[in-house]
Amino acid sequence: MVEPQQEADQLGLERIVFFSDAVIAIAITLLALEIRLPEVHSGGEIPGALLSLWPRYLGFAVSFLVVGSYWFAHHRVFRAVRRYNDTLIWLNILFLLCIAFVPFASAVLGEHGNERSAVFFYALVMMVTGLIQTLLWVYASRRHRLIDPSFSGRAIRFGTVRALTPPIVFLLSLPLILVHPYAAMAAWALIYPTQAAIRHAEKFG
Amino acid sequence: MVEPQQEADQLGLERIVFFSDAVIAIAITLLALEIRLPEVHSGGEIPGALLSLWPRYLGFAVSFLVVGSYWFAHHRVFRAVRRYNDTLIWLNILFLLCIAFVPFASAVLGEHGNERSAVFFYALVMMVTGLIQTLLWVYASRRHRLIDPSFSGRAIRFGTVRALTPPIVFLLSLPLILVHPYAAMAAWALIYPTQAAIRHAEKFG
Amino acid sequence: MVEPQQEADQLGLERIVFFSDAVIAIAITLLALEIRLPEVHSGGEIPGALLSLWPRYLGFAVSFLVVGSYWFAHHRVFRAVRRYNDTLIWLNILFLLCIAFVPFASAVLGEHGNERSAVFFYALVMMVTGLIQTLLWVYASRRHRLIDPSFSGRAIRFGTVRALTPPIVFLLSLPLILVHPYAAMAAWALIYPTQAAIRHAEKFG
Amino acid sequence: MVEPQQEADQLGLERIVFFSDAVIAIAITLLALEIRLPEVHSGGEIPGALLSLWPRYLGFAVSFLVVGSYWFAHHRVFRAVRRYNDTLIWLNILFLLCIAFVPFASAVLGEHGNERSAVFFYALVMMVTGLIQTLLWVYASRRHRLIDPSFSGRAIRFGTVRALTPPIVFLLSLPLILVHPYAAMAAWALIYPTQAAIRHAEKFG
Repeated sequence: MVEPQQEADQLGLERIVFFSDAVIAIAITLLALEIRLPEVHSGGEIPGALLSLWPRYLGFAVSFLVVGSYWFAHHRVFRAVRRYNDTLIWLNILFLLCIAFVPFASAVLGEHGNERSAVFFYALVMMVTGLIQTLLWVYASRRHRLIDPSFSGRAIRFGTVRALTPPIVFLLSLPLILVHPYAAMAAWALIYPTQAAIRHAEKFG
Repeated sequence: MVEPQQEADQLGLERIVFFSDAVIAIAITLLALEIRLPEVHSGGEIPGALLSLWPRYLGFAVSFLVVGSYWFAHHRVFRAVRRYNDTLIWLNILFLLCIAFVPFASAVLGEHGNERSAVFFYALVMMVTGLIQTLLWVYASRRHRLIDPSFSGRAIRFGTVRALTPPIVFLLSLPLILVHPYAAMAAWALIYPTQAAIRHAEKFG
Repeated sequence: MVEPQQEADQLGLERIVFFSDAVIAIAITLLALEIRLPEVHSGGEIPGALLSLWPRYLGFAVSFLVVGSYWFAHHRVFRAVRRYNDTLIWLNILFLLCIAFVPFASAVLGEHGNERSAVFFYALVMMVTGLIQTLLWVYASRRHRLIDPSFSGRAIRFGTVRALTPPIVFLLSLPLILVHPYAAMAAWALIYPTQAAIRHAEKFG
Repeated sequence: MVEPQQEADQLGLERIVFFSDAVIAIAITLLALEIRLPEVHSGGEIPGALLSLWPRYLGFAVSFLVVGSYWFAHHRVFRAVRRYNDTLIWLNILFLLCIAFVPFASAVLGEHGNERSAVFFYALVMMVTGLIQTLLWVYASRRHRLIDPSFSGRAIRFGTVRALTPPIVFLLSLPLILVHPYAAMAAWALIYPTQAAIRHAEKFG
């Protein structure tokens, strides 16, 4: 089946983006499925039960924002992409495999957020996810293999740096787990200001 | 990665809308997952078991219609939007975080709909969701920051009033919870005639 | 927010269709979630356990095909629709509410398919779903309110007849439940040849 | 409802593709729902519990890659398709029914991956899924019934061979189950090099 204009097909590209969006949207929404009210025996116990779930709420919010930022990064990558090939599709499927795995890692974090091993496992999953996304960008952008030729070398390099930010932050947070699990989780919040600083440097630096 | 024509990119905007639709569609469909038939020991118990679930059916229908109306409002907002920036995307991700949280709040309501604390929690979640949606509209429409320049100041103000209707109704329902949980739930039905009245005022007022 | 060209907006229409597709796709895929292997104590019990689930497989397949045919019908309706208004959106949300409720009805059928009350409940849910879809078509097509003006009166009437087929078959199956639950389920298979006959009559009659 | 230009309608075709993508995306993401951490009594048990889940991780990864390759194949088929009819839609719904059933088969594999019957059941489900996809391609491509007329007979034949690869590999793996369940699972990995070889033969052979 040698399709005409295979490489540059806009419609085929849209379908890849669409499928990715659907997978990410499902994974991000399933994060909340892990939050369940424990059984209560009287109405008076409900406020306490709702409050006692705060580590779950926190785990949900953290994971939602991290996956949300991965979606945003995926959005940026594919706005640059103009062509695709089998390798890009398989790298993307690998990335989605990681994303689909996040609700499990997030459930482990929500249940055992005060345990070092759970935080380590979660950071590891997120780090691998971010590394595959970086790989996807490097593969697509290297020598403008699949991206718009109007991108400057500088823009490509900044894209790589931005894609590397989450996995590097997750990597650097690993030793903090030895101090305290929550110290590592607090460090993850650095992803946002770091990315904002990189954007600022890119625009005005 | 300085993309060409970043601000006005129609395709990028469509993908944001698409991702939002997917998240809202998943959350609204998951609402029904909370309805489960209790174990029955003979066929004769099934009708009773099905009928005994009516608070769940009610909770499902209420949540479906509220989330449906939030989807409809989101639809209106993004039909006006012409450009996007990082702030809009993050406000939208926050809005989706709330939407993804609704199935949990709805499960609490379906299980303990006759308890004040459960109704209060539900109204609170819905109020915050509506407020973030209002914020999104105000941010996008203020001085035509991201919306179509053809919108009149009056149309923008009416959009704000309409976006504020659900959170205000949920806020006003809070004291009614002290009277009776069902009184508050009945008050939520006011969202629909109020919004219809506002639309009428906008068209003919 | 008086949008320009509100009534005829193609993009807004696409988003309604998209959102509906997503809800239907989620509901139809969740149907399989009800199938769970019972606990087995040795590998030799697995074949028996897999075979013992046949009423679940049957319930899944029946519901998948019925929802699939409702999706197909929705597809037909919206290929005719050219404009939309608030009433159409709310009728559509009501239709989706029914669709999101189907996995629950299907779970009841899969668990108690040999019980009259379960089959009755399922047929009722499917009948109401089909009636709302009929209503949606009648509303949109009446005097070409929202559909393409090129549709003939005959095409509109055939559309109504086709939309009415599933709810009528489900209605007529109700007395058969008194004979035997499986008699009613067998009758549902009549939806397909009936719709094919109607299409044939429309084309060549 | 005799729609104008029914056969060649691009928008209608996009909606079929879209609905399929959504169903596949949901099924592929639900695969991870089967992975659940067993209850642990102390933080020190978490690493062991996480490691003990490796058959689940493996089952998840295998299923994700197989469903991912079915999605990729579906993507190829529908990039060739230019028209549709009722038969194509129903073949596609049958294909999606199989895809929606995969998370159940995958759960059986993840739970009992060392049992012959579970691996047999899984291979059977995947084989049927692949056969229906082949049927879909053969139906659409036969005498260019629904595909682009620019496809050569050779390209159509290669499409058939490629579509047949997964079901044939699953078929050939069945006797290997008698040797050892894991031998069969290892054989499934042959899908990827075989498909790559076929593509190479198509391009340069």
